[in-house]
This record gives sequence, structure tokens and C-alpha cells, in this order.
Amino acid sequence: MKNLHQVTVLGTGLLGASLTLALKRAGGSIKTAGYSHRESTREKARGLDVADIIYDKIEEAVASADMVILATPILTFEKCFKQIAGHLKEGCIVTDVGSTKVLPHRWAKKILPGSVFYVGSHPIAGSEKRGVEFARDDLFAGANCIVTTDRSSNPTAVATVKAFWAELGALVYSMSPAVHDRTLGHVSHVPHITAAALINAGKFEELKLAGKGFLDTSRIASGPANIWTDILITNPEHIVTGLSRVIKELEKMKSAVESGDARKTERLLEKARQSRSKLVNYKIARGEILS
Amino acid sequence: MKNLHQVTVLGTGLLGASLTLALKRAGGSIKTAGYSHRESTREKARGLDVADIIYDKIEEAVASADMVILATPILTFEKCFKQIAGHLKEGCIVTDVGSTKVLPHRWAKKILPGSVFYVGSHPIAGSEKRGVEFARDDLFAGANCIVTTDRSSNPTAVATVKAFWAELGALVYSMSPAVHDRTLGHVSHVPHITAAALINAGKFEELKLAGKGFLDTSRIASGPANIWTDILITNPEHIVTGLSRVIKELEKMKSAVESGDARKTERLLEKARQSRSKLVNYKIARGEILS
Repeated sequence: MKNLHQVTVLGTGLLGASLTLALKRAGGSIKTAGYSHRESTREKARGLDVADIIYDKIEEAVASADMVILATPILTFEKCFKQIAGHLKEGCIVTDVGSTKVLPHRWAKKILPGSVFYVGSHPIAGSEKRGVEFARDDLFAGANCIVTTDRSSNPTAVATVKAFWAELGALVYSMSPAVHDRTLGHVSHVPHITAAALINAGKFEELKLAGKGFLDTSRIASGPANIWTDILITNPEHIVTGLSRVIKELEKMKSAVESGDARKTERLLEKARQSRSKLVNYKIARGEILS
Repeated sequence: MKNLHQVTVLGTGLLGASLTLALKRAGGSIKTAGYSHRESTREKARGLDVADIIYDKIEEAVASADMVILATPILTFEKCFKQIAGHLKEGCIVTDVGSTKVLPHRWAKKILPGSVFYVGSHPIAGSEKRGVEFARDDLFAGANCIVTTDRSSNPTAVATVKAFWAELGALVYSMSPAVHDRTLGHVSHVPHITAAALINAGKFEELKLAGKGFLDTSRIASGPANIWTDILITNPEHIVTGLSRVIKELEKMKSAVESGDARKTERLLEKARQSRSKLVNYKIARGEILS
């Protein structure tokens, strides 16, 4: 962290602005900088004082940065890399907060100059809310953050990125982009789709009677559609596999219920109950959630 | 409510004990009585003082009751009706808190004597927790409660049951058992199954990286397997239809993602986002949830 004098975040939405706020809160003398391509967002970010400086031009925003973090929708990364490639300092570390990692690594390798170091990041934090006005300086505290590396990753840059997230309070894992996308496909992207499918399968007159259980089950379906489209579209293989697994489980339950097989129904429900209990206990033991 | 001197709850689990506690809290001079077939549960209920009296025998528990409420798993209702049928006072109102209503109405009609009045109830409240120790006197405050009636229902008994739930703070709806089971199949039983399927489709090594979104999405899968087995097994038709609808939506998303159709993917996500937003606003306007 000592080698970071300026950190620039591209995109000042919920995640981007929470990043600069968290960095300001963590203290130290790092200069926090932000950029958004939208004038109105830049104005809001300035009004809310989320960073030491909000730049109007992306080239200027990155020029003095020791670390640049992309916090825009994933499908903008390729263009963004092209815009900044010629303006980065030698030795600059580039990372991002995208929820899929294989394509960002591929784009970085193709576009960024050899004089800078790319490392992938995925802080598993956020909200179904969007926009700078929902930014929080404690968004990453206690959250898991996955840092993705491949054989060409620079060890010093990787260590700096890990230290950076740990400084913001995250629990840092590292893995390859491929393992990341497979894992997150199952625990995040597929559940997002099932939440949306549950809502889309319902009629409003029925949904009106939904209880707290349904609201929790469907909460993530309120996430921004454009951000999630980019996530899903950049991880098709694992989403297709994961959805097939879920559909298979649904068919199992359907056949158990349809045939009045109470024992099989209870066995499937009990298996899920026990697995979730194990998961919750694991999360409590790690301090990720309260008991 | 003035005609109720004693209310007996059969089953002193989370729901049953919350009922007697809520009734004590609502004040008035109604005597609250409970019964559980398990000695250890009766002892716990007495220790936690959840009712004015906990009976050891089901016949004695119902003998002086003006209202008897079944709060046991649904598949015990038939046997329970047989046990109490010969011991109810003339004019006694019998209801239940079961999450499906067609079969309870059918069993009541077949088994209970003509001198008592059956009305179905389904308070949409609860928790993934179970047991008398999680009982709360405010469990029904702000919750929806569906009262189910058919052509043979006694209007005075129906009015009393509605007033009873309103007194505990619930928002009371009424409908036929058939409409109830269809609606709840879609907003409660099917979502429960998708939560369980999501967990069962995952491997623990992957689940470990799950964020808060996944924990919320899967929360209801921690509900007691025996209670939920009874619910699912007594509503097969609507669950099969509902699951087919969800699977169809999942297949739609799968094909959009697989073919890289970002526009279709975003359209489906945006539709879900808007529907959920409408639902949340409706719930906020009714005071069911906070904004």
C-alpha cells in the first residue's frame, strides 16, 4: 500500500463510490480520484464528496494513478482499456470489480501495454440498489474479495492488490479467472436468474399475497438489469451448466410431489436444510455474518 | 371476540406458542390454553409461560374451548380432528394455521360434528426457525392472514375468526380454499422448492464463496423439512403447474444467455426488476414492510 499515492476509480456508481469512500475512511495519505462518463454522475459524486477529486476526462483521471480500478459494467471494459492504455504511468496497477473474470483478463492482455500490471478483483459486495447516493464506506468490510491471477501476473502487483482489499476490510481469496467464473456462476449468477424467473413466473394478483420469504428469495432480482446482463453474457458456459443443475433439482422435487412421495420430498428438503445450516455456520465462524 | 372465553392451541411450536403469546399480549380476559403431544415440548412451553395452561391430554385441552386452533403439521390434522371431534363444546369454532387449505376443509367436513364450526386460517408469518423457544408475541403484527370459507361456512364463526386475527394485528383476507392453494402454491410453495433446489444443486466448496444475495435467496430452505413436506404433499397440482412455469422462465433465460442475446437477457431481467419494484411499493403502501 505504501507504493500507492493515487488510486483512480473509473465509474462512480454504488461500487466505485463506495471504493473511494472506503479508501478515505481507511486513512493513510492516498489520493482518491474518480471519473464517470456522465456529467450528471460527476456532479453528484462531487456533491457527495466521495473522492478527493472527480475528473472530467478519463485520460487525466488515470495519468497520475498508481492504481486504476474499473467499476463500470463489464462490457465497457474493453473500450475502457483502449481509452486508458496510452495514458497509464509505467508500473501502474490496473484492476476492476467485475463479477466475471475470464474476459477482463483476456482483454487486459490484448490491450494494456506491457509496462503496466493487470490483476482481476471481484469484491462480493453490493446491493440491489444502484447509484452513487447509496455508496457506503463500509461496503467491503467483512465481504469476500476474490483476486484473480494467471501465470503472467506480476507477484508484486498481486500482493499490492491483495493488501489493498484487505485494508478495506475484505477477506481476500485468490484463484484463476476460470475457477472464479465457474464458482460465481453457481453461487451468484444462477441464483440471480432463479430470482428473476420466480418473479416473471408469477402474476401480480398472486404476488400481492407474498410473505417475507418470497421477498427475500427474490430480492436480488431488483438489481440493475444492465449490470447483470453484462455479467450473464460474459459467463454463458457456467450459467448454462448451473441452470441445468437447478432445473434437474426442480424436476426431482416436482416428480416427488406429483407422485405424493412424502419420504423423497422430505429427504430433498432435509438435505437442503442441512447444507444451508452448514453454510451458515461456516459464514458465522468466519465472521462474515452474525449468528 | 366477546364470545371467546377460552382459546386452545394444539401444537406449541413456533406458530402455536406465538399465537397464545400474541393473544395474552392483546389483553382481554381470554384464557389461553395449549397442548402438545410431546411431554418435553409441554415442559418447555410451561417453563416459557407461553399460555395460561398447558394440558397433558388433548381431550381435556379442547373440552372447555370456544375456539380450537390446530398448529401442528398439516398431515396430522385428520387424526387430530378425529381425536377432538367427540370432545368439543356445541358452537365451538375450529380453525388451523396450515399452509394449505383444501384438504383441511375436506377433513373437517368429513370428521367434525355438525354442532361445531370449521373455518380455515393461514397466517402468512413464521420463520425458518422452529420450536417454542423462538415464539414471539408480535409474530402476526402486520402479517397477512387468509381466512378460507366455503358455502357451508357459518357467517358468525367466519366473522369471529376474522376479528380474532385482526385483534392480533394481522391484515385479513378471505377466499376459497381452492384459490388459496393456487395462490400460495405460486408465492410460497414453489419459491421454497427453488430455494432448496439452488442449495442442492451447489457444491459446498462453491457455496463457501456465496455472498449475502445467495443467503437471502436460499433462506427459506432452512425451514423445517417435516412441516414443508406436509405443505408440498397437500398441494401437488398447483406446485406442479408453478414449477413448470418457473422452469419455463429458467429455460428462456438459459437460451438467451447461451445464444449471447444481450437484449433478450436484459429485457427479462428488467421485467423482473420492475415487477418486484411494483410489489415492494405495494407492500410498503400497505405497511407490510418498511421502505
